[in-house]
Amino acid sequence: MAYDAVNMADWQISEAAEENMPTPEDWVEKLGLEKDEMLPMGRLGKVDFLKIMNRLQDKPDGKYIEVTAITPTPLGEGKSTTSVGLMEGLGMRGKNVGGALRQPSGGPTMNVKGTAAGGGNSLLIPMTEFSLGLTGDINDIMNAHNLAMVALTSRMQHERNYTDEQLQRLSGMPRLDVDPTRVEMGWIIDFCAQALRNIIIGLGGRADGYTMQSKFAIAVSSELMAILAVATNLADLKEKINNITVAFSKTGKPITCGDLEVGNAMTAFMRNTINPTLMCTAEYQPCFVHAGPFANIAVGQSSIISDRIGLKLFDYHVTESGFAADIGFEKFWNVKCRNSGLKPHVSVLTSTIRALKMHGGGPKVVPGKEMPKEYKEENTGLVEKGVENMVHMINVIRKAGINPVVCVNRFYTDTDDEVAIVKKAAEAAGARCAESKHWEKGGEGALEFADAVVDACEEGNDFDFLYPLEMKLRDRVDVIAREVYGADGVDWQPEAEQKAKMLEEDPKYGDYTTMMVKTHLSLTHEPTRKGVPKGWRLPIRDVLIYSGAKFLCPCAGTISLMPGTGSNPAFRRIDVDTDSGKVTGLF
Amino acid sequence: MAYDAVNMADWQISEAAEENMPTPEDWVEKLGLEKDEMLPMGRLGKVDFLKIMNRLQDKPDGKYIEVTAITPTPLGEGKSTTSVGLMEGLGMRGKNVGGALRQPSGGPTMNVKGTAAGGGNSLLIPMTEFSLGLTGDINDIMNAHNLAMVALTSRMQHERNYTDEQLQRLSGMPRLDVDPTRVEMGWIIDFCAQALRNIIIGLGGRADGYTMQSKFAIAVSSELMAILAVATNLADLKEKINNITVAFSKTGKPITCGDLEVGNAMTAFMRNTINPTLMCTAEYQPCFVHAGPFANIAVGQSSIISDRIGLKLFDYHVTESGFAADIGFEKFWNVKCRNSGLKPHVSVLTSTIRALKMHGGGPKVVPGKEMPKEYKEENTGLVEKGVENMVHMINVIRKAGINPVVCVNRFYTDTDDEVAIVKKAAEAAGARCAESKHWEKGGEGALEFADAVVDACEEGNDFDFLYPLEMKLRDRVDVIAREVYGADGVDWQPEAEQKAKMLEEDPKYGDYTTMMVKTHLSLTHEPTRKGVPKGWRLPIRDVLIYSGAKFLCPCAGTISLMPGTGSNPAFRRIDVDTDSGKVTGLF
Repeated sequence: MAYDAVNMADWQISEAAEENMPTPEDWVEKLGLEKDEMLPMGRLGKVDFLKIMNRLQDKPDGKYIEVTAITPTPLGEGKSTTSVGLMEGLGMRGKNVGGALRQPSGGPTMNVKGTAAGGGNSLLIPMTEFSLGLTGDINDIMNAHNLAMVALTSRMQHERNYTDEQLQRLSGMPRLDVDPTRVEMGWIIDFCAQALRNIIIGLGGRADGYTMQSKFAIAVSSELMAILAVATNLADLKEKINNITVAFSKTGKPITCGDLEVGNAMTAFMRNTINPTLMCTAEYQPCFVHAGPFANIAVGQSSIISDRIGLKLFDYHVTESGFAADIGFEKFWNVKCRNSGLKPHVSVLTSTIRALKMHGGGPKVVPGKEMPKEYKEENTGLVEKGVENMVHMINVIRKAGINPVVCVNRFYTDTDDEVAIVKKAAEAAGARCAESKHWEKGGEGALEFADAVVDACEEGNDFDFLYPLEMKLRDRVDVIAREVYGADGVDWQPEAEQKAKMLEEDPKYGDYTTMMVKTHLSLTHEPTRKGVPKGWRLPIRDVLIYSGAKFLCPCAGTISLMPGTGSNPAFRRIDVDTDSGKVTGLF
Repeated sequence: MAYDAVNMADWQISEAAEENMPTPEDWVEKLGLEKDEMLPMGRLGKVDFLKIMNRLQDKPDGKYIEVTAITPTPLGEGKSTTSVGLMEGLGMRGKNVGGALRQPSGGPTMNVKGTAAGGGNSLLIPMTEFSLGLTGDINDIMNAHNLAMVALTSRMQHERNYTDEQLQRLSGMPRLDVDPTRVEMGWIIDFCAQALRNIIIGLGGRADGYTMQSKFAIAVSSELMAILAVATNLADLKEKINNITVAFSKTGKPITCGDLEVGNAMTAFMRNTINPTLMCTAEYQPCFVHAGPFANIAVGQSSIISDRIGLKLFDYHVTESGFAADIGFEKFWNVKCRNSGLKPHVSVLTSTIRALKMHGGGPKVVPGKEMPKEYKEENTGLVEKGVENMVHMINVIRKAGINPVVCVNRFYTDTDDEVAIVKKAAEAAGARCAESKHWEKGGEGALEFADAVVDACEEGNDFDFLYPLEMKLRDRVDVIAREVYGADGVDWQPEAEQKAKMLEEDPKYGDYTTMMVKTHLSLTHEPTRKGVPKGWRLPIRDVLIYSGAKFLCPCAGTISLMPGTGSNPAFRRIDVDTDSGKVTGLF
């Protein structure tokens, strides 16, 4: 039944599985939808969020299963693969299961990480649509976001060129008096375009914009993506978009998309994004794809909207949080669940032998380069040392009141002895643990894992937030740094501390949640420190204000919102068969 | 039957007409398509070009009707409105009619010109999808185009940072040695973003790209859009994309998307763009939307692909060329038809009383400002003087061997006496002429016009190109300038002439067509000179080389590939009803 994952590329498995893939019409029948609740988009479809939720509002929710991971290698930890594998395993057990994953960014897809569709037999299909723009949500976000920058920069130009009277006559718009040194927003593009990280715009003459420093970030880091992840409906989306702070005036007043009179048009560009796209696993369990990745610099969660629909349609709904538990799960726990009011039944902690070896002191893992032999051959010593990162993450999840299920996402080169070490450590820390061979065998390889999750869902938990919303910003960061990251405390850089004090004193920010910006490659702010570092303090250099999403975002260390394209990028290997129109080389 | 166009906004007419709009499924039946020839995309669908053409290859083509215009006001001439009105008029006469228009750019839609969906009762529906991204073709082009720039700039960074040996080891890629002063390509965005017209990129450190001057152009001016308009299938698209010249090396060698190993991945992003989107008129005649506008700076034609499909499916296929006959029709004639091998049966020359008054010396027409009274009240004197522009355009079209049908696109404030002057002048020049009230009355208002077009189609013509492909570049430009623009000759700036000589001598460019870049607001290169200017010479300051599309593009005067957003932009008035999801305020 399963495909030969060792010898087939992911795109080849996808292509094979697509032959029996349900059509949007098939899904209407399988999921018991009304016909007008499905909007076909080529081979895929978007589901109409509002119609489905209105129809099913009285139906009880299914089990809510979150999937997170230990600190990953730069290649990722197989969290999407494990989420898909769990759906396949539960499907193989006859459960009504589905899930929600995030749309990948074109940046990593065209660079070195691949498309985040899962892998092997635990893959989302069709992989081509998934990898190359899906049904357009990121494009819509890109257009809406950049329209705000067009509105800002053209306004700055016209305000420079015209008197107050001329402005009144031309447009009736008041002078906003933007401070060019306090423009918060940049432009976005959905690639790793390091050349656009720091730019100067508006060169030329009087009609060529406004000369100032500016920047491009990767599209998925846009506040609009954060808003999409936490919005509850179209009215909420529109309100949040209009509240985004684009810049400050020379007198320090925030200038929003509403002030620029562009928030409503931005919402028009994003009107279709609130409806999640329906895809499926290689074994045909339904899975929504909605909102974006990058839990280091963004919220990086599958959307609240897709979780709400999934919980109505499925008995078991699997949702993915980005990156490791210190980043992805912490945001799921204290940001996403606070916004949604939903409570998870269980969390899955994805672990790989590869990452544990890295934490145990194994050689550096570099995307695009061949894996050192330590990762391909048995090395129980490295695993033994590395499990401390997993145990730390188990304890983090237990602080949320949840006893996690550790899934050893087994690769075919891993040995039984290596897996046994992990199981022993996980169980000693009080967690359930199951190995899973979904990559190699699909649902049949994930039965033990699926059973452990079903058991854990029955057990119940004492889910609660890490801190109350009343807690002051600096105290919150201190709690997160100590309890989640294992730091000895927080060092605020002077400007960041000043900003934090201002935010703590202004009641306007009282109901904002705290969204940390930190590398996902270490528990600390330094990507190279693996395992569970001790005796360190978390530096905070800035606090971003997302007044649309209502996030305060303390930034730890230096982290860029625009990744770079490497010297051996993935786009080299992507091609199209011009007879069939099929895309090859995606991974 | 018709809507009250005087008192309803275009988006309101669209919304009303959408209630009875055929679904993609309905179109399958109406057009006799196979089910798998239609790919539903929400309320719209894309048709599968290859499947339809394979099935219908032996079916004879219908009548091929091109629509062009006199020199327009900055608000446009109602060419799309007239194309739609003609479809509606032919439909009202019981003909099997359809057409092909171009996807609008987000730039004008969000600025001051509106969406180019036609207007009044001669409107393409649904207007919201049409105006806000359609089925994603421009987004696909934007991503594909910018990926080439990511490939180029990251390559320049890595080549600067690494030795030849390091490059070999990292990627096996040879050093291309890009000349940073000879990067031809810029980035694109689909808005009027004058602040990005001239920029400096790559500021920062060693990993922040390559520091150099760069630029953004509006997305629809991309060579990829030109390629989409003239490509014949996916293999042709891929070949053309790989041949695009991105930059030159320090030894003067062209560096293509193929050299950057990114052309195939760009094609993957564009794989869906070759299938045209099917929309319809407010009276439900089918109409494809494919390729982009801006015949001044781009080819600005509806695609060859959509014309080929339309000619198979319809007895009368109406296609639109951008802007006035000197620009749009000239490119249809000598570029598009040369690429397609198709011959038009007739051309329609759209004329408005408003534009004729402007050519007759009426006050300046400024988008976003109220129209001066001369344009709202009868003024036969201005019309009398202004008809010379129309007569010039009639003579241009006659040089192609076609006797055009002049359509007076009548606005409700125009008077019978004004229209009579136009008719008299058109007929004196040997053309058919019909007034049409499609804006006000839809197909019922376009019957006389439709009948004139049917008659003209029966008449036949002696269609032939203005110049043979063997003619040298400078001679071709001279012929176009004299015969089409009415200039006394061409002045080549020294650098442009040097480039032209090189191009004339290199046999590689022997089969390239000539695509002029010139303002559409005047027969000359100066937008303010209306009517039919005499005693002037055309300055050519540069020749762009589109080695993908195989175009040589002589640039007349100064013309920017990035328009600017004005002081009273349209995005202010666009909104979304958050209960229904419907977009309001588009025009």
